Order: sequence, then C-alpha cells, then structure tokens
Amino acid sequence: MSHEIRDILQQLRAGELSLDEAERALKTKPFDDLGFAKVDLHRKTRQGVSEVIYGEGKTAEQIVRIVEAMQQAGQPDVLITRLSREKAQLVSAVCDLEYSEMARIGIIGKRPEPDGCGRILIATAGTSDMPVAEEAALTAEMLGNQVVRAYDMGVAGLHRTLAHMDDVMDANVIITVAGMEGALASLIGGLADCPVIAVPTSVGYGASFGGVAALLAMLNSCASGVAVVNIDNGFGAAFMASRINHMGVKNAS
Amino acid sequence: MSHEIRDILQQLRAGELSLDEAERALKTKPFDDLGFAKVDLHRKTRQGVSEVIYGEGKTAEQIVRIVEAMQQAGQPDVLITRLSREKAQLVSAVCDLEYSEMARIGIIGKRPEPDGCGRILIATAGTSDMPVAEEAALTAEMLGNQVVRAYDMGVAGLHRTLAHMDDVMDANVIITVAGMEGALASLIGGLADCPVIAVPTSVGYGASFGGVAALLAMLNSCASGVAVVNIDNGFGAAFMASRINHMGVKNAS
Amino acid sequence: MSHEIRDILQQLRAGELSLDEAERALKTKPFDDLGFAKVDLHRKTRQGVSEVIYGEGKTAEQIVRIVEAMQQAGQPDVLITRLSREKAQLVSAVCDLEYSEMARIGIIGKRPEPDGCGRILIATAGTSDMPVAEEAALTAEMLGNQVVRAYDMGVAGLHRTLAHMDDVMDANVIITVAGMEGALASLIGGLADCPVIAVPTSVGYGASFGGVAALLAMLNSCASGVAVVNIDNGFGAAFMASRINHMGVKNAS
Amino acid sequence: MSHEIRDILQQLRAGELSLDEAERALKTKPFDDLGFAKVDLHRKTRQGVSEVIYGEGKTAEQIVRIVEAMQQAGQPDVLITRLSREKAQLVSAVCDLEYSEMARIGIIGKRPEPDGCGRILIATAGTSDMPVAEEAALTAEMLGNQVVRAYDMGVAGLHRTLAHMDDVMDANVIITVAGMEGALASLIGGLADCPVIAVPTSVGYGASFGGVAALLAMLNSCASGVAVVNIDNGFGAAFMASRINHMGVKNAS
Amino acid sequence: MSHEIRDILQQLRAGELSLDEAERALKTKPFDDLGFAKVDLHRKTRQGVSEVIYGEGKTAEQIVRIVEAMQQAGQPDVLITRLSREKAQLVSAVCDLEYSEMARIGIIGKRPEPDGCGRILIATAGTSDMPVAEEAALTAEMLGNQVVRAYDMGVAGLHRTLAHMDDVMDANVIITVAGMEGALASLIGGLADCPVIAVPTSVGYGASFGGVAALLAMLNSCASGVAVVNIDNGFGAAFMASRINHMGVKNAS
Amino acid sequence: MSHEIRDILQQLRAGELSLDEAERALKTKPFDDLGFAKVDLHRKTRQGVSEVIYGEGKTAEQIVRIVEAMQQAGQPDVLITRLSREKAQLVSAVCDLEYSEMARIGIIGKRPEPDGCGRILIATAGTSDMPVAEEAALTAEMLGNQVVRAYDMGVAGLHRTLAHMDDVMDANVIITVAGMEGALASLIGGLADCPVIAVPTSVGYGASFGGVAALLAMLNSCASGVAVVNIDNGFGAAFMASRINHMGVKNAS
Amino acid sequence: MSHEIRDILQQLRAGELSLDEAERALKTKPFDDLGFAKVDLHRKTRQGVSEVIYGEGKTAEQIVRIVEAMQQAGQPDVLITRLSREKAQLVSAVCDLEYSEMARIGIIGKRPEPDGCGRILIATAGTSDMPVAEEAALTAEMLGNQVVRAYDMGVAGLHRTLAHMDDVMDANVIITVAGMEGALASLIGGLADCPVIAVPTSVGYGASFGGVAALLAMLNSCASGVAVVNIDNGFGAAFMASRINHMGVKNAS
Amino acid sequence: MSHEIRDILQQLRAGELSLDEAERALKTKPFDDLGFAKVDLHRKTRQGVSEVIYGEGKTAEQIVRIVEAMQQAGQPDVLITRLSREKAQLVSAVCDLEYSEMARIGIIGKRPEPDGCGRILIATAGTSDMPVAEEAALTAEMLGNQVVRAYDMGVAGLHRTLAHMDDVMDANVIITVAGMEGALASLIGGLADCPVIAVPTSVGYGASFGGVAALLAMLNSCASGVAVVNIDNGFGAAFMASRINHMGVKNAS
Repeated sequence: MSHEIRDILQQLRAGELSLDEAERALKTKPFDDLGFAKVDLHRKTRQGVSEVIYGEGKTAEQIVRIVEAMQQAGQPDVLITRLSREKAQLVSAVCDLEYSEMARIGIIGKRPEPDGCGRILIATAGTSDMPVAEEAALTAEMLGNQVVRAYDMGVAGLHRTLAHMDDVMDANVIITVAGMEGALASLIGGLADCPVIAVPTSVGYGASFGGVAALLAMLNSCASGVAVVNIDNGFGAAFMASRINHMGVKNAS
Repeated sequence: MSHEIRDILQQLRAGELSLDEAERALKTKPFDDLGFAKVDLHRKTRQGVSEVIYGEGKTAEQIVRIVEAMQQAGQPDVLITRLSREKAQLVSAVCDLEYSEMARIGIIGKRPEPDGCGRILIATAGTSDMPVAEEAALTAEMLGNQVVRAYDMGVAGLHRTLAHMDDVMDANVIITVAGMEGALASLIGGLADCPVIAVPTSVGYGASFGGVAALLAMLNSCASGVAVVNIDNGFGAAFMASRINHMGVKNAS
Repeated sequence: MSHEIRDILQQLRAGELSLDEAERALKTKPFDDLGFAKVDLHRKTRQGVSEVIYGEGKTAEQIVRIVEAMQQAGQPDVLITRLSREKAQLVSAVCDLEYSEMARIGIIGKRPEPDGCGRILIATAGTSDMPVAEEAALTAEMLGNQVVRAYDMGVAGLHRTLAHMDDVMDANVIITVAGMEGALASLIGGLADCPVIAVPTSVGYGASFGGVAALLAMLNSCASGVAVVNIDNGFGAAFMASRINHMGVKNAS
Repeated sequence: MSHEIRDILQQLRAGELSLDEAERALKTKPFDDLGFAKVDLHRKTRQGVSEVIYGEGKTAEQIVRIVEAMQQAGQPDVLITRLSREKAQLVSAVCDLEYSEMARIGIIGKRPEPDGCGRILIATAGTSDMPVAEEAALTAEMLGNQVVRAYDMGVAGLHRTLAHMDDVMDANVIITVAGMEGALASLIGGLADCPVIAVPTSVGYGASFGGVAALLAMLNSCASGVAVVNIDNGFGAAFMASRINHMGVKNAS
Repeated sequence: MSHEIRDILQQLRAGELSLDEAERALKTKPFDDLGFAKVDLHRKTRQGVSEVIYGEGKTAEQIVRIVEAMQQAGQPDVLITRLSREKAQLVSAVCDLEYSEMARIGIIGKRPEPDGCGRILIATAGTSDMPVAEEAALTAEMLGNQVVRAYDMGVAGLHRTLAHMDDVMDANVIITVAGMEGALASLIGGLADCPVIAVPTSVGYGASFGGVAALLAMLNSCASGVAVVNIDNGFGAAFMASRINHMGVKNAS
Repeated sequence: MSHEIRDILQQLRAGELSLDEAERALKTKPFDDLGFAKVDLHRKTRQGVSEVIYGEGKTAEQIVRIVEAMQQAGQPDVLITRLSREKAQLVSAVCDLEYSEMARIGIIGKRPEPDGCGRILIATAGTSDMPVAEEAALTAEMLGNQVVRAYDMGVAGLHRTLAHMDDVMDANVIITVAGMEGALASLIGGLADCPVIAVPTSVGYGASFGGVAALLAMLNSCASGVAVVNIDNGFGAAFMASRINHMGVKNAS
Repeated sequence: MSHEIRDILQQLRAGELSLDEAERALKTKPFDDLGFAKVDLHRKTRQGVSEVIYGEGKTAEQIVRIVEAMQQAGQPDVLITRLSREKAQLVSAVCDLEYSEMARIGIIGKRPEPDGCGRILIATAGTSDMPVAEEAALTAEMLGNQVVRAYDMGVAGLHRTLAHMDDVMDANVIITVAGMEGALASLIGGLADCPVIAVPTSVGYGASFGGVAALLAMLNSCASGVAVVNIDNGFGAAFMASRINHMGVKNAS
Repeated sequence: MSHEIRDILQQLRAGELSLDEAERALKTKPFDDLGFAKVDLHRKTRQGVSEVIYGEGKTAEQIVRIVEAMQQAGQPDVLITRLSREKAQLVSAVCDLEYSEMARIGIIGKRPEPDGCGRILIATAGTSDMPVAEEAALTAEMLGNQVVRAYDMGVAGLHRTLAHMDDVMDANVIITVAGMEGALASLIGGLADCPVIAVPTSVGYGASFGGVAALLAMLNSCASGVAVVNIDNGFGAAFMASRINHMGVKNAS
C-alpha cells in the first residue's frame, strides 16, 4: 500500500519528479495511500461482479449510460436491482439484458461460476415472500454463490419446515425471508449451526405495518446467530451472505 | 328473565300492587328486566368464583374493604390480581390470604374443583415469562379449570417444544405466553387444533419495546386459530380460556 | 398415531421389510410419527372445509392451479379469501365459483351444514365495517357454523345495541367488528357471557391510523372475555370462533 | 378598551402631556390598547379565580413567592395544580393551604359560589381514574361551577352507566375521564345532548401505552359532540367545561 | 318519560291490555322508558337539522336510499359529509342537492336560520386548510349557527392574526383549523376568552405525519380552554361548537 | 495546509530526511495533510474554548483525567455538560470548578470575552424550560458570545412575547427553547429576521411524549428560517448559534 | 418605527387630525407601530426576492392570480416551490416561467446577483437526493447566494466524500441532503467548521419510514454545529442557509 | 445420526429388544433421530464454550443451580451475561467467578484459546458505547476468537476513524457498536471488505428514543455487507461474528 508514497519519494530524490510534481502526486491521489482502493480491488477479485446498479429512482437512460461507462471501463457483467418491467424493456433495447420480473433484477453479461465455500440456503415462510427471496437468490448467484431455494417452509406447518432439515444442516449461510410475524428466522435460527441473515418483508396487512412486525420479531429473535437487514432488502442479505460464504476462500488463500 | 315483569303485572292486575308500587318496581330495578343480571347469575353459577379485584392502583385498605363487602354479600372466594408483596402483607393481617409473589395474585377462600370440559395448557417461551404465566394459571384454576404448565417450550430449541407435543394435542384450550419475538404463538398455533390465546409479555429489551414486538408478531400470526390479549395480561387470557373451556358444559346443560 | 412405527417394526421383525427399508420408512415420514398429520385429519373431519386459499398476492392462474390440485386430491370444497373482482372473474372462467364482492370471498363447492354447538353472532359498529364482517360470516358458514348478523349495533346509539340484547344473550361466540374507536368490543364484552373475538377494522380517518386506534382499544378492553385478531382479519376471527363453537362437539364426542 | 388611547390623545391635545410623554405612554403599554388585557379582566370577573399555578417543575419556594406576589396584587384565591405532597407541606408552612393528595391540588383562599349555568358531570370509567377526575372536579369548583361526581360508570358493566342516566341528562357539560380503552367517552357521547369533554388517563398497562389507547379512542369517537384534551389533563378539561358552563351567563349578560 | 309505563299499567289494570300485550309493550320499547329518545327529540328541536349522513364508504345508491327514507319520515333537510364529486353528481340526478366541492358537503333542503347564542369564528392557519374549515363552516350553518370565516390567520405572520383580533373577541365559540405545526390553536387560545375547538389537518409533508404533528401540538397547548377533535374532522368540530353555541338558548329556555 | 508535505519533500531532497524518515513522516500524520487539523485550529482560534466534555455516562474520575490531560496539553478552559451535582462535587475536589446545577454545566478556567458579531437571544416558553436554556446560555458564553435571556415569553400570553419585541429585533441569532406544543419557535420565527435555532424540550406530560410533540411542531414550523436540534440539546443549539454568530467575524477577517 | 405614532400625535396637536381620526389611525394600523413591518422591509432589502409561493395545494389559477397581484405591487421576481409539471405548463401560458422539473420549482423574473458573504455548499449522499438538493440550490440562488453543488458524496464510498474536502473547507454554510441512514450530516458536520443545515429526504424504503430514519440520525448527530429541517424541505434549508450567509453582510453594514 | 435408529432396529431383529422396547426407544428420544442434537454437538466442538446463561430476570440462586447442573454434566466453562454486580457477588460466594462490571459478564472456568480464522474488530463510536462493546468482546473471546478493540473511532472526528484503517482492513469480521445517529456502521461498512455486524446502543437522549435512531440508521445503511442485531445486544453480535469467524475452520475441516 505504501509503495506509491515511497515511489514518489524515490522519484523526487532521484530528480525524476520535481517538487511540484511530487506534491501534486501526493495530494491528488491521497486516498490510494490510505488503502481505500484496496477495498475495490479485493471486491472485484473475489466476488465475481464488478458493480451493482440500484435501479430505483434512476431513469432507463441513466441506467444505460452507467452500463456503457462500466463496459468502457472493462466491466462487462452488471447487476441491476429494483428494475421495473418498463425500464427493463427500455434497457433491453440497448443492452443484452436478462430480466426477472419477480425479482425485479436485470443482469447484463454472464453469471459467474460459484466460487464460495458452500451453499446459501434461501428460505421463505410463504409464496408471497418470493420476490424478495428471488432478489436475494439472483444477487447471490451473480456474486458467485451456489444457491438452494426453499420457498414455502412455513411456521404454521411445522412439517414443511422440518422437511427441509437437510438443507438447513448442509447450508454454509442461510437467508430467511418472511413477512407477517417473521417467526421463520427464530425457528431456523434455532435449528441451524451456521450464520443466519433474516430479511423481513412487507408481506402482510393491518398490524404488520409494512414489515415492521417481522422486523421487530427478527431483531428480538431468541435464537443466537441471527442478524437482520432492512425490510424487503433481498440484495443486502445476499451481499452479506456472499461475504460470509467467501470467508473460507479468503482465509484459505 | 321476564318473569319479574310478568309477576309485577300480575300482582298489579290482582290488586296486590298499587299503580304507584308497580311503576316504582319497574323503575327501580329496570336493568334486571333487561337481562343484565343474567350475566352475573350465569357467571356465578358456572365459573366458581364470584368476583375479581384488580389490585393495581388500589390501597390495601380499599382492597380489604371490598373483600369485606363481598363476604357480607355471601361471596367467600375472591381472586386479587396485580397485588404487590407489600399490599399482600397488609391484607394478610386482616384476611386469610394465600399469596403467590411470582404471579402477584392473592386468593381468599378455597379453590374450586375443576368443572371445565378439558385441560388448559399454559406454555411459555422461557422462564422469564413465568410471572405472567402463573397469573394465568392461578386465575384459570380459580375459575374452575384443570391447568397443565409447560414453562420453557422455547422456539430456538425446537426439541423442547416438540417434547410437549402430547400436552398440545390433549389440551382443550392453550395459552401461549411469550415476550421477545413471540414466535411461540405461531409455532403452537400451527401444531394445535384447539383455540389458542396468545399473551405477549414485556420480557425483552431494546427493540422489544416493552412487549410490542411480541404483540405484533402474535397479531400477525400466520397460524389460524390464534387470538391475542394485552401485553402481560395473564388474567385476561385465563378468563377467556376459561369461558371457552366451559363451553361444552354450557352447551351440554 | 404410533401404529405406523409399530407396523414397521413388526414388518421388520417378520422379515417383510429389510433393515434398509425399515430405516428409510422411519426417516422419510418421521413427522407422521409425531402426530402432525393428526391436526389435518381432525380439521378435515370436524370443520367441514378442507383448505383455505389466501388470494392476496397470488395470480388467478396460481389460484386455479391450487384449486385443481385440491380437487384431484379429493377436496371439492374450497374457500378463497382476499379475492379481487378481477381475479374472481378469471377463476370463474375455469371453476364454478360463488363470489361475494363485499367480502372478497370466493367459494367453490357447497356450503356445509352447520355442525357447531350454537350460533356465532357477528356484530358491527357501522355499515362501513360490513366487508370485514362478511368475510367473517362467510368463513364461519363455510366452517360449519350458524351465523347471526347484526351489522349496525353502534355505540353512539345505545338503543341500537340494546335492541340486539337477545342475539347477544343467545350467542355461543360473538365476533365484534369495529373501526374508529372500537368501543363496541367493550360494550358487548360487558354484556355477553360467551367468548368475544374482536376484529379492529381500518374504517376511519386521521388518528384512527388505519385501525390502530380500534386495535389498541380492543386490546385494552376493560371487559373480560375479549381476545383480538389482526386489523381487518375477518377470516381469522371466524376461524377462531369456529374452533370455539365446535368445542362442545369435540368434547361431547 | 380604547379609552386609554383617547385619554392620552385628549391629554396631548389639551397640552397636559408633551409629545414625548404621549408617545412614551402609547409605547410602554401598547398591549392594553390591543385588548389583550380584556381577556384577563373578563376572566377575573366571570370565573371567580384569579390565577392558577402549575406546580410541576416548580420548587416549593418558587410557588410561595408567586403566591405572595399574587396576594400583594390583591388576589387572595389561588389554585395550585400538580402539587406533590412534599411541596404541599412546605407551602403549608407559609400559606393557609387546603390540599387534596388524590387530586394533587392545593387551594389558597376560599372556594367561590357556583355561578355557572348548570351542572358539570364528571364521570370516570373506574376508580383508578379518580385522581384525574378530582383534579377536574376541584378545578371546576374553584372556577365557580356546581359539580356532580359519578366515579365508577364503567362500560363493561352497562347497568352502572345507565344508573347515572339522569345525571347525564341533567348535566350542562360532561367531563368523561377514562384510561384503558376509553370507551366511556363514546358511550356517554352517544347518550348526552350536551358538550362532552373527554380526558384520556394513563391508567392501564401494556398496549395502553400510557394513555395513548384511550386518547386515540376518544379522538375517533363515533359519537358527535365530543372533544378531547391531553392525557391526564383534568385541569384543562375543567377549564374548558367551565368556559362552556359560563356561556349562558355571558350570553345572558 | 315514565308516562308510557304508567299508561301501560293503567291500561292493563283497566283490562284494555292483556297480560301478554302489556309485557310485550314493556319489552319492545324498553329504551324509551330510559330516556334515550329524549336525546333525539332535543336534537331535532334545538339544532335545526334532523340527520347527518357520513358519505365516505357509502355508495351513491345507498345515500339516495337513506335520503328518501328520511324524507318519507318527514325530515326534508339533510347534510351529507365526505361526499365526493362523483357521488354528488349521482345523488344530484335524484335529489335537489346543493354541493360544495371544497367542503365535500352536500345539502338537501334549506339552511336553517341561525338560532345559536352568538357567532362561531372559524380560523385557519393557511389557505390549504380551507377544505376542512369549509366542512366545519357549512356544518355549523346547517346546525343553525352564524359563522364568521377567517381563513388565513397564519402564525408566521402575526400581524395577520392580530388583524382579526375583533373577530376573536366577538366570537362565542372559535374553531381553529391548522396543519403543519398547529400553533394557531395556542395563539388563539391565548387570546380568546371563549371555548376553542382545535382541528388538526393533514396539511403538510414529511414530519407532519399526516396531521400528527398538529394534533400533538394542539393536545399539548399551553393555552387553557382548548379541546381537540380528530385530524381533518371539520364536521365534529362544528357539531361540538354548535352544541356550545346553543347552550345559552337551552339554559335560557 | 500543504506546507508540511512540501517541507518534508524539500527536506528529503535536501538530504535532511532519509527516505524512511520521510515516508514515516507522511504516514504518521497523514491527516494533517488532508486538512482535518485545520478544523481544530480554526475552532481553537475563533471560539474561545478548546474542548467540551460530555459528562453523561462518564465517571467523575474519567472527567478529571480528561481535564488533566487537556491542561497538560495547554488548554486551561474546559466546558463540561450534563454534569450531575454528585459528579460536580467530586470534580470540584480536584479542579477549580464553577458549577451551575440548573444547567448541569461545569466550567473550568475563565469565561472568554464575547467576540461574536452580535447578541444571541435565548427565549423560553415557560420557566420549566430554563434548565435547557441555561445549558445553551452558559455554552454560548463559554464560546465567546454575548447572551440575552428572555425566559418566559409564552405563547398563550402573547403580550409577554411582544414585550420582548426589541430583543427579537436586535438579536443576531435566536435560540427558542420550548416543550409542550413548541409553538414559540413558529411565533418568533415569524417575527425575527435572523436565523432561529429551535430546541424542543421534554417539558410536558401525556401526549407531549417526552418532547416529541414540540420536536414535530418545530420541524413543521410554517415560519421560514428555523432549524431544529435534538430534544433538550441546549448545548447543540448554542454551538450552532455561536458558529453563526461568528460568521461575520470569519468573513470580515 | 415610531415615526408614525409621533406623526399622528403631531398632526393631532396641530389640528390636522381630529381626535376620532387620530384614534382610528392608531387602531387601524397598530401593528406597524410594533415593528412587524420592519421584518418585511429588511427581508426585501437584503434577500433579493420579495415573495415565495408554496405551490402544493394551490391550483394553477390561484398561483397565477397571486403572481399578478405581486407584479401589480411592484414585485416582478417570484419563486414558486412544489410546482408540478402540469401546473407549471398552465402557469407558463400566462407568465414567463422558468421551470425545473427536478426541483419542482418555477421562477418568474430574473435571478439576483449573489450578495451573500460566501458560498453555500449543497452536498447529497446519492443521486436520488437530487430533487431536494435542487430545490435548495435554486432557492438559495434566488435568495442571492453563490451555490456549489456536490451531488454524490456518499458515505459508503468515503473517498468520494474526501474528494470534496476543499469544497467543505471553503463553504460559508453547508446544506447536507441525505435519505436512508442520513450519515452524511454527521460526516460533514465532523469535517466542516461552518454551520451545517441537514435535510433528511424520503429516499429509501422499508425501515427508512419515509425519511424518519434520516431525520432521527440527523437530530442525534454526534457532530456539533448541525441543525435540521423537515424531511424533503430543501426550500427551508436554503432559506436558513441564506439567512446565515447574509449575516456578515448585515453585520458589516 | 441415524445410527441409533439402525441400532434399535438391529437389536429388535436380533431379539435383543422386544417390540414394546423398540417402539418406546424410538418414541422417547425421537428428536435425536431428527438431527436436532447434531446442532448442539457441533456447537460444543467448534465454539469452545458449552453454554451461555442469560442472567437478566434470573435470581443468583437460579444461576448457581444452573451452573452446578452444567458442571455435573461435565461442562466447566460457563458465560453469564447481563449479570448485575449484586448477583455476581452472590454467585462468587459459591463459584469461582471472573466478573466484568462494565460488560456485566461473569465467566466461570477458563477462556479458550482462539481457534477462529482471523480477528474480530470491535469498534465503538464513543466511550459510552463501551459496556455493550465489552459484552461483545468478552463473549467473542469466550467463543474462541481473537478480539481487537477500537473503542473511540468516532464519526465526527474522521481522523480517529481513519487512524484505525489497518485494523479495519485486517479484520475477518467487524462489530460496530454505536448509539446516537449510528453512522459508524455506514462509515466502516463502506471501508471494510469483510462482514460487518452493527449493534445499535441505547446511548443518547431525546430523539435517540433509546437506540431507535441508531437502529434505523443501521438498517438503512447505504453500505452493503452490514447486518444488524437488537439494541444493546453485544452478546448476539459476538455470537454471530464468532460463527462467521469459524466458517473457514468449518469449511477447511
């Protein structure tokens, strides 16, 4: 990390840089010296995707322009989240876009081979939670993870939960996606021995308050080893799970 | 119910009552005529306890005075809820009081024989929920019910829950008592085939918000056949459960 | 319940099953052994309807497919809740559907004969609460209950409430449906001597906060014997009421 | 009201005031000219009490000093609200104080004769609401009103409510004081034909949220002719009720 | 009130009624005896309008049917609140309707002559509060009150407030209508010496939370003599104000 | 700011620093290069106080140790906020402490001469807001500002507000401190033509919700030129006001 | 300010005004005497814009009428905020309107020359916050300020924030605009040595609760020198910032 | 896992178990068969601590009894969280307890050697967050992790944050602990390339609402790779972090 500083100093001493040039060099890229860039390099190397575009609140034109800029910068693979059907159609006219309406995700380029340590299990309480779960699943796949889907594990039907006992035991990381009372996180958190990321969803009505009931339940889970992301934040859960799932790789390397 | 009206009318026609006396009789006890009293009579007959005193916000002196008034009215058995240790000691000096500090309940007189249809199972998620559960248990017993206690059924330890499978299956009514994420209600609600009364408790910290997290979870339970009472309201849950548990008796009679 | 285990063991000892076959049998259906299935069998037998589909968030196509699967499994009678007019029309094209727009309920097959112990009274505060009340009423009828409707019992007009005194006294279970300040639950709770299920509705404006005012009022009811379900959850109230109304039957059998 | 301006102007024109003196006179008491004082004069004349001290957050010394200042200004009768027992004892050592611990009110001087149009009925749902009700009652009496107390009108026991039917019908203004679900306001609001002031109290626990449940219920009352004051604000309700109760007097005069 | 009871009893004794007829008579109209009807009679006599229809959540057809029923019952003058433009057009096709789109109020029949004691001042903070204010104004006029409108009294521009000083001083009752921070209620409450009804409105954005900010401000007003109704409840404020404004009349009579 | 970098580079080129020494110099104080220190230097120079200790949650010992470290670093003047009486006594035993119990502020060293552009007016709605106001006042004085106190400007008594009209007009910055409905901020915001900092206080009860009512009112103020700090944050308001009050000085220099 | 009073008095003494005329003059414009007008005069002189129209809730017709009234009153330059595209088109047909759809701002007349002391930096966390930032930017420019825009300073990408270090250091006032977690305010508040106005935006989803998360974060900022305005209130932030930015001018003059 | 089933079956076939004995064996320990025990075994093996006791709401006697039961079961090392000083003293009298008052943690037995993959960095915003951070640190150490503490990384003082850049880059997992506005999570989340667990604390006042402001900020973090636990839940964060930190170990094995 400090090579650049030393390089500049050596070049200065060697007369290859003037005093002005050396000062400017130290000032114009000060943050490289501090290791910020390291983050991005690591990310690119390890996670198989260069960049994510949050599509909400961006026009199709803005999205296309960002994609083009990325591709000119040599990053052909892009993940676009919260992409409406309408915008997807507009983007498709210009780029080669693979689109999942349920997940509201667009993918440009190819999906990477899984390079994580193990499998990420994505479990939902009911079928209504599937859009959020698919946002998580596609994100996790684009980040180089093998994903197992279990999309109707219920709580009120315990036998359905237990039928997935093997998936729970075999997972390296689990993402639980649930609205209403969000009890699935506690149930799986009590069964699993791997990290569990809980995603409350806005599925429900009345006193679910748009996902608040599930959010509170997950934050108060009596099961240890559960951490929570924002309501409906499938992307965030997958990003976190992918980081965890690449730990062994990082540690092994 | 209408016998009294008819009696008065007959006595009037027979000249046994003057017009003034008849009118006064109809006006001084108008509510008997309307059937309100029926409620109290039924209650006394069927539920084995005459009256409940809510001890919170009453002084020991006030409580003693109410008890004495009841006893003079021929009601020797009294249940006092939310009774602090200090007040209990003051009441004990005057009445023959059986006191449970955990449940904050005082009992005067004798407990009735169970006369309900079946058993009421009272299940808690953890040991911290026991005070609310005991309030429910003692209340249910005083109202003439057979009570089964299962006070650490957890959720994070599913095997503990399932170890009580028989109790769940055998119960006529179930009261689930849980704080934190309140998932026990959904779990038991999904297993049981009898009515489930859910009591959120204020057990927890941080985002449990004094029981709100559990309350919301229970209201949003994806399990059908679950209804909810106020936070920490063990008494209310037991009263409701007792009414349900005496349904068969009422219907049979 | 344990017959299957014993059967397997006997067949093993008799040489009718190999060791591998016996082990697989015990592992592939382990939950039957635990009695989970019992729930479903009981439900089917006693409640007169096999299955309920929650229509919200499901496409008409998904609903039709579930209905077909049920019918192939020998369950001709299906209740579909939260079914919009549009979806109902699509489903009608394929199945023989009876649809109530007010209740947003679709019924396939025939309504069962009432087999509960008594009557379920469904009382609303005002006419605006009728959609939720009808969801409860049709659900209760499909679950085999006799339903009495009292859809404008008010509170501000006490004489309207009292005019239904007989219905209140004769009911086996009461469902009170009210928005705004939700006082009807307390009023009826104080008059009735049977279990009362309170359903807050989102009827109101301003500080009713989409049903929160009514929900809180019902949870804090000073009347004993009242339990609460989620805002606008007419189905849940009816399911709970039906369980209670079939108690005597269960107990009698 | 405008006499002073005119007086000054006349004195100026008559040469009794210099230009400087007239200008200063108009500037030093400008607000008298605007009629602000009118309020205080009216208040003093009509309501029988000169001033109220809000005792909360004031030391006993501060209270004594304010009382002395008032008495020197010729106002012997003072009402002190939210006065703790401790402060009351300290104030008693210096002034001649009549103290109600329940109402947390201290009175210096004599209570005025009632000079309002009619009676103010103060109704509570339960005995726990009495402190707030007494704050209202003593305030109303000090403001010159005849007060009728009905302190256990319940809701869950409708016959208790109806037993006070005459008081409700005879009142000129009604103050309903209730915690928990606050349904008393709607019940009385539906029966009465006079203005009803509703005071939510912090009586309750759990989901009463310190009076919020009652507050919301009262704001959403389906009964017309009900307006609400802050939680536990017995003083404010009585002040408002007294203003209304003196309307006829004002209008008659 | 008790004449009917006596009449029935006399007729019974005279043999004009059979025992059965007398009993039924006493049971079928029991509430008349209790004085409930008195309310409606008073209301009709004193307030100049027989009935109000809350249009929200009712179809145009339902509204028309209610109006026709009223007119057949001899009540030609009807006030319909929360009536959308669309419904108003449908109702207009059948009845002779006067419609205010801003107030969302429809009036059938003629407006009564003012018969209250004095004037009701309706003051708003800004022009955006006018719809709620007009709902209050038209309601108050239909209830027989003289109304003074002051629809831009502001707070941030104190001179505008003070410019209406005379209106404030001359009013018998004041309705303050304000969204955002709702400070107008405190400002006017501090100036006026008559009862003030405060109506928070949902005018505002962000942390106004749909009127909650104004509601809380009004409930916490440091000015005495202010009571509050629900957010946007112009009708309720006017109804309350009208009751107060007719006090003197009632008292005088 | 960049002098140090250049100095190091020149020393390196001149052979006064070795390569290692230069690199270490650039790395050990990298943030000086980025201008972070500039902040602290400016602050010290301009605002007359070196450092503030937030006393809440620190023990008296910790506070003393921080003070000693400051004094050894040549900073004799220290402001300690949220300092309880108990801790103040312990600190007094070691340091020369000037303590205000009302403001819960301790001052070590001498108060600076005012060097701001003008006066900061600190206005409160009532006397109960004085502790927060004094925290602001002492902080502002320690930061080199001339402070004018107006501690009972009310809203309900408009004449009191207007009596301070000159102070409002003469102020360079105004801090309004108010609990309950917080209307003072709007009132003064509408009168003043200088920046207004609003501090909601937790003064009040019931629906003031610990200052939330005042906070919301201030955020929604219809007066322009008002910005808000946290509930009871007198220090923060004074710090902000001092920055503004030193703007002219900064700009002039 | 007091000239008018003196003038009137002199005219009275000189016989140019009758007693009646003098009294009426003093009463009809009393508020001019109190200095209220001073505010408007100062504002006009110093801030380069006469009036602002809040477009929300006003029809295009109303806006046009207000603009015409202003122009007739000699105020050609008008700023219209919260102006929808539709209304803008209607207004454009009548007035010469410059419209920014992003900022939802319309400008009539010419933008003033900057006359503030320094620059106002407007920083956003992300591109989605731009509409609110542009409302602030255009407002600040119309109020006579030089504006620097930095519209993607992030927090998660610290190097982007630090890349704007010079802008932060050079600003006279900073407006930080951020939704989601609102951390930008704390980050910049810790770096800057000038006043910081924080504007929470409703950008985000789930537990951002329409800007509440950002609002709370900003109110709780551990950085001193930060004050907050309402969610999405770009106008208010700019107005406050402009007042501050003109302090030096005011003080210098 | 399935060995036991097979063993029982073999014993049955071999005649070593009767049919009754085999059935009972399968029924009395059914959950071992289902793999639940696997969880506990894994946990014991990998995480170096057998059991954790949540001390809140348990008496010292209850804690001692649980510890003794554990030790008799061969588990000498126990972690007790939320243990007050008083209870710790009572437990110390019986067991050999190492107690940290700041962390409110008691440790019985020896701390394990670190066996995780890397280091867990625990970063706080300020010193007031230390109790929660220490709960996390001691827990993480007891679970076999190497912990790095950075307890005053601030946000308002960015240079302090950046001074820990190396710790951030070297960590395998990071726990950020912050109250008030909770911005530290976003700041570190943007810098780090490892999983970040965010713990909101109840440090703060006013609108921090006991940690809600920090909680919301963390849930809405614009930095990816951040997940959140309950307010003040240092234990939960450490447990989650430990699971992640042992991933490589698990995966490697």
